[in-house]
Amino acid sequence: MERREAERLDARDPLAGFRGRFVIDDEELIYVDGNSLGRLPRETVRRLAGRVDEWGARLVRAWPDWIDLPLRVGDRLAPIVGAEPGEVLMADTTTVNLYKLAAAALEARPGRPAIVTDAANFPTDRYVFQGLAARGAAELRVLESDAVDAPTAAEVTAACAPGDVALVSLQHVAYRSGALADLEAITAAAHDAGALVLWDLGHSAGAVPVGLRAAGADLAVGCTYKYLNGGPGSVAYLYVRSDLLEELGSPIWGWFGQRDQFRMGPDYEPADGIARFLAGTPPILDLTAAEVGIALVAEAGIPTLRAKSVALTELAVQLHDAWLAPLGFELGSPRDPERRGGHVSLRHADAWPICRALVERAKVVPDFRPPDSIRIGLPPLYTRFVDVWDALDRLRRLVAAGEHRSFDRAPARVT
Amino acid sequence: MERREAERLDARDPLAGFRGRFVIDDEELIYVDGNSLGRLPRETVRRLAGRVDEWGARLVRAWPDWIDLPLRVGDRLAPIVGAEPGEVLMADTTTVNLYKLAAAALEARPGRPAIVTDAANFPTDRYVFQGLAARGAAELRVLESDAVDAPTAAEVTAACAPGDVALVSLQHVAYRSGALADLEAITAAAHDAGALVLWDLGHSAGAVPVGLRAAGADLAVGCTYKYLNGGPGSVAYLYVRSDLLEELGSPIWGWFGQRDQFRMGPDYEPADGIARFLAGTPPILDLTAAEVGIALVAEAGIPTLRAKSVALTELAVQLHDAWLAPLGFELGSPRDPERRGGHVSLRHADAWPICRALVERAKVVPDFRPPDSIRIGLPPLYTRFVDVWDALDRLRRLVAAGEHRSFDRAPARVT
Repeated sequence: MERREAERLDARDPLAGFRGRFVIDDEELIYVDGNSLGRLPRETVRRLAGRVDEWGARLVRAWPDWIDLPLRVGDRLAPIVGAEPGEVLMADTTTVNLYKLAAAALEARPGRPAIVTDAANFPTDRYVFQGLAARGAAELRVLESDAVDAPTAAEVTAACAPGDVALVSLQHVAYRSGALADLEAITAAAHDAGALVLWDLGHSAGAVPVGLRAAGADLAVGCTYKYLNGGPGSVAYLYVRSDLLEELGSPIWGWFGQRDQFRMGPDYEPADGIARFLAGTPPILDLTAAEVGIALVAEAGIPTLRAKSVALTELAVQLHDAWLAPLGFELGSPRDPERRGGHVSLRHADAWPICRALVERAKVVPDFRPPDSIRIGLPPLYTRFVDVWDALDRLRRLVAAGEHRSFDRAPARVT
Repeated sequence: MERREAERLDARDPLAGFRGRFVIDDEELIYVDGNSLGRLPRETVRRLAGRVDEWGARLVRAWPDWIDLPLRVGDRLAPIVGAEPGEVLMADTTTVNLYKLAAAALEARPGRPAIVTDAANFPTDRYVFQGLAARGAAELRVLESDAVDAPTAAEVTAACAPGDVALVSLQHVAYRSGALADLEAITAAAHDAGALVLWDLGHSAGAVPVGLRAAGADLAVGCTYKYLNGGPGSVAYLYVRSDLLEELGSPIWGWFGQRDQFRMGPDYEPADGIARFLAGTPPILDLTAAEVGIALVAEAGIPTLRAKSVALTELAVQLHDAWLAPLGFELGSPRDPERRGGHVSLRHADAWPICRALVERAKVVPDFRPPDSIRIGLPPLYTRFVDVWDALDRLRRLVAAGEHRSFDRAPARVT
């Protein structure tokens, strides 16, 4: 495949105009790690500066305009994950939201001691469930995982003895392999076992269609700093299906989750609706940045984003087969685009030094995930087909020349 | 007292130069609510813009420089609360930190079912403890509170039967009355009962000396958006005395609290030191703003800040007695400055409409707290003595003229 074919794909890209909406100062740098930290939208620079000015000028008088941001921004995110208004709340971190919702689920299913998850789940998800299990709140049942494919509904069903599972929790798109789980079938399998299901949307929201409501999914969490471009460590979100809101409560009873908050009454009484899952004072700067990133994704539209995302990852797979497989690489992601999210994992025994060499010698920024994966994240809002071509071209040249052999430091990187 | 006396106090104020370090566009506005939302430091505008630029340009490559911010900024805050390096961590919200530390304390004191707090404690503190109690993790014992004064060590001792209290938790400075609790004596009383003590420093850090280490205090939490000027909803902090770190663990097991985080191993193992109380990905913009606000307080120095703060609140008390008491006001704060923090509470049956009238007619921004308190917050970094004089002068004129009588809406405001 010639580079000009990638150029032709870019020329036909209906999302091509979005690239200019992001700060991209260094055109030589190829950034294929937007699934770790999304790029900075130009509008975010302006909106954050405005919010800071508002703090300075209006001071506490601005709070009446800020106080609903966790719900308002959640409502903007709702259609991106297939939820209804009032079902998505911006709050805390993904980890804290996982804790709140998993604890709520266990409490809502008394007598069912087990949480089912899989070994490929993201570390923080597994650790949260281990913490709940260690406190006697749950027994943790961990599905062995295929290195590439997502767990199936049949595997979930097999892990659920009748009446003993309170919660099934999996990533929608696996952080390492990019495998896309069958949200609908696994949700149905969990429900057949009488369990609630909690989806981690970190690597899927903004990249693939997420049909929470259509699948009848119960609970979900995710971050805004990947495909939603909210910035480093920006505020996370949680989803609770509206008919469960009465039944579920947060283990962390805070004043922002309190009905009639500013009466400051003696006893906690959960707010109506999803606000009951708020705890402390919401982070207004983070909410401001998250809102801009979410609005860009909403404007582009998930079907268009997904179509381009599939084409981008298909190109990466094709170039892997042609250029990289002969150099000792192995595809760490599903070959079927229907089973794959927005990133592609390239496995190689020297994945870590290759990653370092790419960053330091070739101006390509991917991501390493232990033990042997190079993640190539291709957010469709700003990634061009020529970026895929150039990144993999630089990668094959670098490995062919053995440039990575001088790098041998131990991994120390961040999602 | 004449206004020129206040002017003379300003002329002698060693902190006078700090006012210019804050964004103050409207000199006619008198802001006496910095104990709710602190003002915007000029340096914050510059530093936040730089951080946003860094996100745009360096992208995920900046994470190695960001990842230690929760500890680094915590170390900058440590001397302000009388702690050692490695004992203060920036993380989450005050509410989530209260939950983490209270749960950790209960776990570290098995067989001791009670938490002792007081009825005047801030709502979110009481709600967090109620939530733990509702889950059977604790029995909540609530001290009746005097409307004005802080609970005493003797009251704490009286509430502790031998061997039954795991945790005593109080505000250091009471959010409504401004009463300053005796941190040392109450810590000793809690320890005599075999309990751990958890201090809420929200209204004290940055305004009064906090001798956590000197008192042998075990645990503390606080926010950065009041006297520390970190911005609306900015990141909170927690303190754990270093010799307790081995013994205590967070109930929320997250990947940022994991030893050897980026190995992403199968099992949670808490990090050494205070990092074990991290959960999710830290908020980099908020940490940037908090660092600036904290540095300003550190630069001014707590003894100087406290000396001015006492003088400011003394002036407010004096003007209350002269001007406001005859208009039906009652002092809602301790008269002894040794027993008072950085704000003064003025009680009046019409407190709410008076607050509204002050904001909308007199350009004075105080704060209302149910049922009948107008809080006058006087952060010494940027509050002048003439501000106290002018605020209370406008207040007395407004009430004398009955201007508040046309305001009668129900309260709906925010700390």
